[in-house]
Amino acid sequence: MKVFVAEKCGLCAGVKNAMRLAEEVLQKEGEVFSLGPIIHNNDVVNRLSAMGLHTVDGIEDIPRGTVLIRSHGAAPAQIEKLKGKGLKIIDATCVLVKRVQKIATELEAEGYTVVVMGNKEHPEVRAVVGCVNHATVVADESDLEKLPVDGSLGVICQTTQSPEYFARMLSAVCRRGFSRLKAINTLCKEAVKRQQSAVELCKKVDIMFVLGGLDSANTRKLAELCQQHNSQTYHLQNWNEFDKSKLAGKKTAGVTAGASTPEWIISEFVEKLGVSEPDVDLC
Amino acid sequence: MKVFVAEKCGLCAGVKNAMRLAEEVLQKEGEVFSLGPIIHNNDVVNRLSAMGLHTVDGIEDIPRGTVLIRSHGAAPAQIEKLKGKGLKIIDATCVLVKRVQKIATELEAEGYTVVVMGNKEHPEVRAVVGCVNHATVVADESDLEKLPVDGSLGVICQTTQSPEYFARMLSAVCRRGFSRLKAINTLCKEAVKRQQSAVELCKKVDIMFVLGGLDSANTRKLAELCQQHNSQTYHLQNWNEFDKSKLAGKKTAGVTAGASTPEWIISEFVEKLGVSEPDVDLC
Repeated sequence: MKVFVAEKCGLCAGVKNAMRLAEEVLQKEGEVFSLGPIIHNNDVVNRLSAMGLHTVDGIEDIPRGTVLIRSHGAAPAQIEKLKGKGLKIIDATCVLVKRVQKIATELEAEGYTVVVMGNKEHPEVRAVVGCVNHATVVADESDLEKLPVDGSLGVICQTTQSPEYFARMLSAVCRRGFSRLKAINTLCKEAVKRQQSAVELCKKVDIMFVLGGLDSANTRKLAELCQQHNSQTYHLQNWNEFDKSKLAGKKTAGVTAGASTPEWIISEFVEKLGVSEPDVDLC
Repeated sequence: MKVFVAEKCGLCAGVKNAMRLAEEVLQKEGEVFSLGPIIHNNDVVNRLSAMGLHTVDGIEDIPRGTVLIRSHGAAPAQIEKLKGKGLKIIDATCVLVKRVQKIATELEAEGYTVVVMGNKEHPEVRAVVGCVNHATVVADESDLEKLPVDGSLGVICQTTQSPEYFARMLSAVCRRGFSRLKAINTLCKEAVKRQQSAVELCKKVDIMFVLGGLDSANTRKLAELCQQHNSQTYHLQNWNEFDKSKLAGKKTAGVTAGASTPEWIISEFVEKLGVSEPDVDLC
């Protein structure tokens, strides 16, 4: 099987920073707490867990020591609670997510109704919403009815969405009507480059593999975009999920990976895929 | 012929104000100068001309006395020139146009590249452009290449365009991309109501007449919208342009009129149309 790897893929600076900070604390203190998975990648979380990382669901589950704010960020109220408990805080919020949080508070201060385009369950979006008194999350066109038709709307977007999604949602807002609209492009440029790179590659190959956590927003977006351009797209967490029968009749394969997928998962996958041949019995 | 008149049509407050101010000066001073037609309606201009209104193309053509700034407004540089010549100025700029001019200067001061959606030859747009150091006028999708894809865009719209046009153009801007986008809805709500009223009516009648000046942007927009919903739409200046043969086979007619079309033109048209019957020979 001839394998091509997307020019831009794998760990982004924000995730690398969070992993590095976690490892530093673990080396010094032997344990660290994370509110929710530090990144949306089970392999990485399992590796760090073995080193002493405790992933907890709520602040009440943190009894002592140091807590790491993951790259998706946390709401100011959560940070205040952590401080109130006397915990040491290591902030690994991605700088781009910090920027979105700052923009959201500025938009509200300027009198805009804050509108966040994205998935309201995603921790990044939840943290951004937590930075303002009120925000409306718009996931798709059906959510638009939550918005006033003559309002002052301050629109931002979850960093890992695609430019096409942001443009489509903004267009729908424009068609509904507004009095004032201020929209800031808060998309992560690195994520956008990875999307472009993945789309380019998936058009050229017989089968496309998108590697990364099933909860990872940016990986899912990569898979969604690739699926649009190549119906033979598979979102896998790692080589263990690989199904050889999918290679039947294929000669070329593409590989890309989300921003929370470490290098070792990509290399293992690419190496093993390179020496795989479709089982002729299955053809 | 059964005739229906659009619920909202005819002279708007801005045009009424300009006509009233012109008449006041004419009564007091016997003459007044207007830089370009005071409104885009030949019948009104001819009536005021007979009273002493002089329509001129340039400031150099005004020798003395009082100059009236029409409802479409004028650029600050023009007003300075008029003052420099020692002329008395009566400002009849529509308050909504003044608002657009103010918003344009504010957007530029806030660091945005001012983008005006509309017709660059229209006096309102020319005056708005003249209020800032630099503005890009976007008439349709083909003009979008003038805009940077990663810019800070401050978008406003010619007051007499339709919400559909503004939304369509903004959507196209969103698809191209931007860094920051601030858009203010500068459409005239009265013009929008007239558009809605005209569209509603034209769907119910066999033939639709849109009365108003051929250069009148808001009348042309009404005609364009009606044409989309009723192919039997005719844009006429007044009853003199009426062609009876168009009534062949029609039973109901609708009438609307632009914001610069005076009541007397509408009444005459509606009255004469009401007693018209299609020439049976032509059926």
